[in-house]
Amino acid sequence: MIKPLHWNEGNATVELLDQTALPLQEKWITIDSVDAMAEAIRSLRIRGAPAIGIAAAYGVALAAGQAPSGQQTWAATFDALDQLRETRPTASNLFSALERMRVVAVDTPLGRSDYLRDGLVREARAIEREEEIASRSIGQHGLSLLADGMKIMTHCHAGGIATAGLGTALAPIHLGHQRGIQLHVYVDETRPLLQGARITAWELQKAGIPCTLICDSMSAHVMRRKGIDAVIVGTDRVAANGDVANKIGTYGLALHAKAHDVPFYVALPASTIDLSTETGDDIPIEERDPNEVTALLGKRTAPHGVAVCNPAFDVTPAHLITAFITDRGIIDPPFEEAMKRIATG
Amino acid sequence: MIKPLHWNEGNATVELLDQTALPLQEKWITIDSVDAMAEAIRSLRIRGAPAIGIAAAYGVALAAGQAPSGQQTWAATFDALDQLRETRPTASNLFSALERMRVVAVDTPLGRSDYLRDGLVREARAIEREEEIASRSIGQHGLSLLADGMKIMTHCHAGGIATAGLGTALAPIHLGHQRGIQLHVYVDETRPLLQGARITAWELQKAGIPCTLICDSMSAHVMRRKGIDAVIVGTDRVAANGDVANKIGTYGLALHAKAHDVPFYVALPASTIDLSTETGDDIPIEERDPNEVTALLGKRTAPHGVAVCNPAFDVTPAHLITAFITDRGIIDPPFEEAMKRIATG
Repeated sequence: MIKPLHWNEGNATVELLDQTALPLQEKWITIDSVDAMAEAIRSLRIRGAPAIGIAAAYGVALAAGQAPSGQQTWAATFDALDQLRETRPTASNLFSALERMRVVAVDTPLGRSDYLRDGLVREARAIEREEEIASRSIGQHGLSLLADGMKIMTHCHAGGIATAGLGTALAPIHLGHQRGIQLHVYVDETRPLLQGARITAWELQKAGIPCTLICDSMSAHVMRRKGIDAVIVGTDRVAANGDVANKIGTYGLALHAKAHDVPFYVALPASTIDLSTETGDDIPIEERDPNEVTALLGKRTAPHGVAVCNPAFDVTPAHLITAFITDRGIIDPPFEEAMKRIATG
Repeated sequence: MIKPLHWNEGNATVELLDQTALPLQEKWITIDSVDAMAEAIRSLRIRGAPAIGIAAAYGVALAAGQAPSGQQTWAATFDALDQLRETRPTASNLFSALERMRVVAVDTPLGRSDYLRDGLVREARAIEREEEIASRSIGQHGLSLLADGMKIMTHCHAGGIATAGLGTALAPIHLGHQRGIQLHVYVDETRPLLQGARITAWELQKAGIPCTLICDSMSAHVMRRKGIDAVIVGTDRVAANGDVANKIGTYGLALHAKAHDVPFYVALPASTIDLSTETGDDIPIEERDPNEVTALLGKRTAPHGVAVCNPAFDVTPAHLITAFITDRGIIDPPFEEAMKRIATG
């Protein structure tokens, strides 16, 4: 299993797989400052809700590591928290990871900059390790929903390099494949940035899992003609009522699943549940650069000057979700009570 | 209004707007043989069900014009009919136009090659003129469904250069705009070949009609958040029961419209109704080159060797259609009787 990043103990930097260069290049870059980490998150060199949280945590550690000792270590830490909080608005893991880093900073006795630096690296590692364990648990719980010969559809990329292990949506698929269960995955290419085509197809191919790439607009047709047995997607934030923010196109896909009686599962670690967000309407939806839609790989595909709408996420209402696959078990509807239990458990 | 092609009386060739070069280039090419016309249709230099019919008709005229006199003129005509029938499988206009050309050939007295050549050009022109008139009628009937301030969503390109006039889906929008009705069009980019981004957005921009480009995966989200008042699409073939074949993604879009109580209209000339096709299940769906999905403008976007599904069309069942906008009036459900009346009227 490829991880999206590594902490280099030796020189206190982060080695990060640049996901914008996939699938044609496996390009690793060295991140040696919080600025570079913020840029990597904003420009999607690293992406996927759990991975963003881990990356941001290491970003804070980088900032503290490079600051002079004394109060300035704390100042740099708090500046880094502010800076990283602004990188992307939707994924809740970003905010929960940064909150854990903040707690480390306020809990460390002032004057002990070395404690702070060590504590931040230790906390970032703990977040990474917990996400890795959560990934495996998601996979194990999700296995109960899979059977030999199933055709599964997924959207965007919620695999290993979006987390620190097996992924979220892809975790049961990876585990199932390792145990000899025959699965076939239909992968939505996921416009505008093609994470499905570029990353999911690449990761599944690497793992030897049979898959077929389709355009997002083909999902309803494929469900009707090929017979899809389940849809599994990841999520960037789950509200207290079970509404789910995920990559744009997820909501439309959930409507297609509903129309064809295909079970629609959302896979996530408990860290993605945000009880402070009541419903999906309260989740901020990131609007990204219009050029993501009007040009591909630097080539213009739409007339100059055309208006564009480019939300990075949409909200799937809870009533379209068959069940959640979490690291703490499968959650069936009604969701609200179970969400609370799992998020605070 | 730009037309997709012109017959050059002087040297008996066809001038054709190469739609694959849009929106960055308005490149006109000269088609001087049936082979060149078949290639232009297959490779989508000309596309849109009515326009394909017109282009194929002129393709037959080109073949007869270049053949030696005598029986060879007929042989060349029938060969051209066979060749053009194989270019694309879904659009019914292609087959109905070729059938009209065949009737001209069998009705012309053998030995009068000059009559045949003239007759074929005349018939192709008649088809073109009839499609132009049909376009305007579709627009006029469709106007009854539009009101000031409406937000309309469309998929693929069913505008002027997909026909010989105002288009099908875009005809009411063009006419409405000309009459001062304020409309805003949300344009699905329409993967894999981006006809929405490349052609619809270009045509609307040229006509001064406000529009916003979105990815196909954004339609459900936009309906929910922006409030869309109607969806209007074209079609490549309507079966006797009212099932509709249209660009891949139309079926999914119809499901989104249904879920949001947005009226879903299909605009077409009567020539697109095929009473010999009983239901949508009987419509052959063209499967196109996987490279259309895995590469864009020559650049690879998916890993090498990945399996791809690339149907060019899907079928929207009649029960998802609010009404048909035809050149002979609006058809409300139930559709079957009205289809028969209009197609044979």
